[in-house]
Amino acid sequence: MQIKACLFDVFGTVVDWRTSVSRDLEEFARRKGMRGIDWLEFAVEWRKLYQPSMDEVRSGRRAFTILDVLHRESLVKLLQRYGVDGLSEDDVDHMSRAWHRLDPWADVREGLERLKRKRIIAPCSNGNIALMVNMAKRAGLPWDCILGAETARAYKPMPEAYLASCRQLGLAPAAVMMVAAHNGDLKAAKSHGLATAFVARPTEHGPGQTSDLAPDRSCVDLAPADFIELAGQLG
Amino acid sequence: MQIKACLFDVFGTVVDWRTSVSRDLEEFARRKGMRGIDWLEFAVEWRKLYQPSMDEVRSGRRAFTILDVLHRESLVKLLQRYGVDGLSEDDVDHMSRAWHRLDPWADVREGLERLKRKRIIAPCSNGNIALMVNMAKRAGLPWDCILGAETARAYKPMPEAYLASCRQLGLAPAAVMMVAAHNGDLKAAKSHGLATAFVARPTEHGPGQTSDLAPDRSCVDLAPADFIELAGQLG
Repeated sequence: MQIKACLFDVFGTVVDWRTSVSRDLEEFARRKGMRGIDWLEFAVEWRKLYQPSMDEVRSGRRAFTILDVLHRESLVKLLQRYGVDGLSEDDVDHMSRAWHRLDPWADVREGLERLKRKRIIAPCSNGNIALMVNMAKRAGLPWDCILGAETARAYKPMPEAYLASCRQLGLAPAAVMMVAAHNGDLKAAKSHGLATAFVARPTEHGPGQTSDLAPDRSCVDLAPADFIELAGQLG
Repeated sequence: MQIKACLFDVFGTVVDWRTSVSRDLEEFARRKGMRGIDWLEFAVEWRKLYQPSMDEVRSGRRAFTILDVLHRESLVKLLQRYGVDGLSEDDVDHMSRAWHRLDPWADVREGLERLKRKRIIAPCSNGNIALMVNMAKRAGLPWDCILGAETARAYKPMPEAYLASCRQLGLAPAAVMMVAAHNGDLKAAKSHGLATAFVARPTEHGPGQTSDLAPDRSCVDLAPADFIELAGQLG
């Protein structure tokens, strides 16, 4: 079957969250005269609260809540843990939106522009619409539309996150390719009938990364080096 | 308050549905050897079934159903009324998607490109996501994201159609401008706190159009001649 749309995981696959969030927080801390915090460690600790916060929604214990809200709640917890106080609500809002200001990997813009010529390209991220739109405007990501958790009202890897995205494009899952740097995401997508492409991002978690360095061939159709090579492979 | 996003009505405001649908059906009929139907009249009759089909959803009598499905149901009724038979399901699907193949008014692409430089631009249409994405790819409409009935699960002029779109952008209604060729759409948007711009499309309904020729000043903030002038007025 011909691939008519490519859906993209975003955090880690399209953008380098670790470097971007820590740089953003560092700049903010410098402006505010906050000292003594390792913001790279802080960014990593923040990210560790990401899956548990979504698990509350995945389990049904909590009604669907957008990621901006979950990110902010996790940030407030972390600021308390680090003993940071005296920030205004606007300050916390600004820090929380560090996730709107992430930089893409070097191949992303050119790869997406090429893929967009013949196909629909959209994020299928756990990030909410405002987050994805603001990130795209700043980073120059030429999405055709924003799909993912908020339009599906489900967090990956729940089936609905993938299936609603295909349905909303009016396409059979087999006509849609999920692109991610995470084998777990692709395993879920493949189990629902989507085609899959693995693009390694070996420094997403820093220089000592041990996970997702290679594709899991049991669920991966294509394993291009980057988005530009993906565009070439899809033709 | 500064306008951070412009939301657009689409059928009539961005695209010329009357000319485009009739031309599309005419071409299809020629290929299929169908004769004796006035396809301009057919397109207008099809459009007349648009509001009644959404009223079923607005009233709560029917669960939210995307416009592609409503358009197809109306088409099937109309084909019966015109005595057309012998079409395959694929033929009816193709005809039904004439609404995905609409041409923009002459000022639209340049106006949207200019508006997009400093603001978020998105449709807030009763059309569903696939319809809006396919139309945008074909017509070169550079939307930042697709909002409207399907993401809000409500048809304009229901309040949620406007309010969900603002919420999904993370913006207060006063930071969002609704742009439409229909005063009724703008009256609803204004009543929920959005800014409004009226762009006249005096031939949407053909040469004898009598409605929506001028802005209703009780609910309209700006009344530019076209999208290019709107971009200039917003700066």
